[in-house]
Formats: sequence, C-alpha cells, structure tokens
Amino acid sequence: MRWCRFQVKDKVAYGIVEGERVREVRGSPFGRHYRTSKTHRLAAVKLLVPCWPTGFYAAGGPNYEDHITWVNSHFNRNFKRPTAPHVGYRANNALIAQGEPIVYPKNAKDLHYEGELVVVVGKKLKRASEAEALAGVLGYTIGNDVSERVWQFGDDTWWRAKNSDTFKPMGPWIETDLEVDKAVTTVRLNGKVATGFRTGEFIFRVGQYLSAMSHHLTLFPGDVLWMGTAGATLPPIKAGDTVEIEIAGIGVLRNPVIAEK
Amino acid sequence: MRWCRFQVKDKVAYGIVEGERVREVRGSPFGRHYRTSKTHRLAAVKLLVPCWPTGFYAAGGPNYEDHITWVNSHFNRNFKRPTAPHVGYRANNALIAQGEPIVYPKNAKDLHYEGELVVVVGKKLKRASEAEALAGVLGYTIGNDVSERVWQFGDDTWWRAKNSDTFKPMGPWIETDLEVDKAVTTVRLNGKVATGFRTGEFIFRVGQYLSAMSHHLTLFPGDVLWMGTAGATLPPIKAGDTVEIEIAGIGVLRNPVIAEK
Repeated sequence: MRWCRFQVKDKVAYGIVEGERVREVRGSPFGRHYRTSKTHRLAAVKLLVPCWPTGFYAAGGPNYEDHITWVNSHFNRNFKRPTAPHVGYRANNALIAQGEPIVYPKNAKDLHYEGELVVVVGKKLKRASEAEALAGVLGYTIGNDVSERVWQFGDDTWWRAKNSDTFKPMGPWIETDLEVDKAVTTVRLNGKVATGFRTGEFIFRVGQYLSAMSHHLTLFPGDVLWMGTAGATLPPIKAGDTVEIEIAGIGVLRNPVIAEK
Repeated sequence: MRWCRFQVKDKVAYGIVEGERVREVRGSPFGRHYRTSKTHRLAAVKLLVPCWPTGFYAAGGPNYEDHITWVNSHFNRNFKRPTAPHVGYRANNALIAQGEPIVYPKNAKDLHYEGELVVVVGKKLKRASEAEALAGVLGYTIGNDVSERVWQFGDDTWWRAKNSDTFKPMGPWIETDLEVDKAVTTVRLNGKVATGFRTGEFIFRVGQYLSAMSHHLTLFPGDVLWMGTAGATLPPIKAGDTVEIEIAGIGVLRNPVIAEK
C-alpha cells in the first residue's frame, strides 16, 4: 500500500495511492483513520513531505562498504567501518517534497546527491528486538541526503553541510510492502544514470539500527531513519540539474536544482 | 514576563507566572493568545517542558574557553577553540520537565550535568542580522545537557551520550526579560554548589549563533538553541542525586536522578 500526504486547494490530507488516483483518508497512518469515498487524480494533487518527523535520524556515518572506499579515496579521508549502528541527526527545516527545488546556496562549492532508503516508524518502540522493531515499521520512502562536501569536511559539525534549507528532499510516498533485500536504488542526473546499488547491502540493517536505537531512546510513530548511501555521489549537482532517486518498488523522488537568489 | 506550559488534571495550557500563581492563557506565546481571568496556584500545577521544538539546536562544540581547558585536561582530549558558530543537534525524545527524573541507564558509567542557557526563538528568522536575530528571541530558559562521557568520547556520534531518553531536562519556564550579560549560572548537587560561572562569557554570543544559523536555515518560533556549559562538570551524577541548575533572573531547574529499572 502507498500512503501519501497531499494538498488540493486549501485541503491537506493523507491519501492512499491507487494507480493514477489518490483516495482521500481521514486521520493518518499513525493513528485512527478511515478511507473516504473521495478520490483525486494523482497528477492533480500536490504531494507533500509524507510525514513530519519528531525524530529525524540518519545512519551516523557510512553504512555501505563501497561508500567508505570512495569517500576515503576521493576526499582523502580516513573513515573506518563503523563498529556499531551509531546515529546522526537531520533537521525538519531542510525537508522538501516531490518536485520542490533544491536551492544551491551562493557560497556552496561542491554539492552532491545521496540516494537513500528512508525507514518510517509506525509504532512506539522502546527496548525492541530486531523482529519487534521491523514489525513496528510502517513502510519506506526515498530520501536525497544532499551534502555540501566542503562544509562537510571543513566545519566542526555537519549542520549546514547536511541541513541547509531544501537539502532534504523526501518522498514521494510511503510504500508499506517493500522487500528491502530485493530493492535497487538508481540515481539519475538529467535523465542519465549516475549511480546505482543494491539497496539492502547495508553495513547495519534496518532492524539492527532500530533495535539498537530503541535501547537508549523511544522511537515514535512518524520518526524516520535515513539508511545511508553507497558508492560515489558524482558528478556534483549544479543549478539547472534535475535529480531523480528511484528505488524500484517505491517510486521516483524527483527534484530540480535552482540557484539561490 | 515568565511563560510556562502547565497541566492541571487533563488540561494543558500556556500560562504566565505571576508570583505564586499562574494565569491561564489561551493560545501560545508563538502565536495569537490572550490572558484569561483564570489563575492557579503555581505549586498546584504540573510544569511541562515549556515548548516542543521543531528545531532543537545546541552549540556544536565547547562555547566557553574554560570548558575546553577542562575537557582537554580531564579526558585527555584535544578540543580546539571553534573558529565559527557551528551547530549540534539534540532530540525531543530526551526532553523532560521540571521535577521529572533523569534516568541513569544501566550500562552508563560516567554521567555528567551541564548547566546551560537555552534561547527560545519567537519569530521566523531567515538571513537575519545579529540585531534582527536578538529581536526575534522570545526569551530564555534553562537546560541540563546531561552527557554520558564514555559514550561521548567512544561512539562515532553523540547520539546516546547526549540524547538518551530523559537526558535533556528543560525549564522551568521562559523568561522574556533576562539580561544575559548580567546572568550567573550555578549548579548544585544535593543542595551543595558544584560549579558556577558568568552565563554570558560565551565564545560565540546568542546573536552571532542565531544570525549565522539563519543564513543557512530557517529558524521557526519555538526552536531552541542550547548555549553550552563552562568549566568542569564534576562530580559525576549518580542515582539518588538531585541536580539543580539556577540561572539568576530565570529560576531553578531541578531534577532527581533515578536508576533505570
């Protein structure tokens, strides 16, 4: 099933994508809800960020072997394979939806896409086993963890490298039935394939992350965890580009890049 | 003026502290509101976390000179004076209110208090000057940036060191008229003074932080920025302790410490 959040005129609602139409839902996937008899053409609604997280988490370092190899070689760094699923933070100010523009900051120099699987938590989780954690997942969406590499490696923290306004496209919707182990992530720049990888080849899997996190913190419905990216993130993106992240089984997250005014 | 958020029976509301009483307010300090004629005894209400931030920011490294000196000496680290106001993240899962217990995790070994000034943003800020940023501050509250030092220096990120459940006491209320340069922070453990410092002796001041942040991200009403702590954070806290952070001009944030069950 595909949950979206959408706007038509002044109305904002959750919906279920049924082919080329969206069925309007009262309530949300995180609480009581029921399907209404009202549907809209998918092409006629504005898709919104599919949920507004209370906890916006990310793999707190590289989570694919070949991303470590590439970062260390390309940026002359010394990242090591993480020994446990530690956690990073992203921020809601940076979220944008399907189709909304990534703004290339005036003082940015080296902006990269990062195609990522996003886990959407559906139930409150505290001290959960891996199996309990996976049973508490509502579904999966797609994230583009846009990163300014000069700031990433030059600043004391990753705040503006990762969380400048518009740097976190997320969408287009939440797919509840994805088989992560069979999924493939493909990134296209201006229609041309830039990179691709098997989505499930993580260093730490979804269940390992959520279970480990839940032993120290409470996960809440609507919290999200971005699972990291693989390989290289080249060529850099520039104003005028369109970035598409496709995860087969979910869909395509598509955002244009524009220059800051 | 002192804004609090409180609960009486099933009712949750914002209020204005007037001596020993709380005047109930409809709405919030971040939007339309009006004072009602209803008041409660301050001692009879449960104070809540004074705002639930969308953006939960902190000084992304030491923000007082003598904290750098102490950390480097006590933990044999090599922190340098930051060259710009970079930003760290804290998380809402960890927030607790006045009087609520800090839970000492079973596998924690070296838990420290950090008494901090907390800036509460009152207006949307984007590309603000220092003066504009300061004019957009609603007021100030108190934070205890509880930190597990073994995790802080051993993990890849500070997630569980800083953001384990209950590690972020914040309150008791928001004071709109604090003169930061004249304020003094005092930390007491079980009634005995453990440390104290002039609150305003930051490396980067409130206006510098907010202005710099707002050039990359949008600050929203209710966002908070924790300004860092000074000096040493000893002795470590343990189950059974009570920690009080006082900032003269705001009040006292008081939390007991209990063992995880």
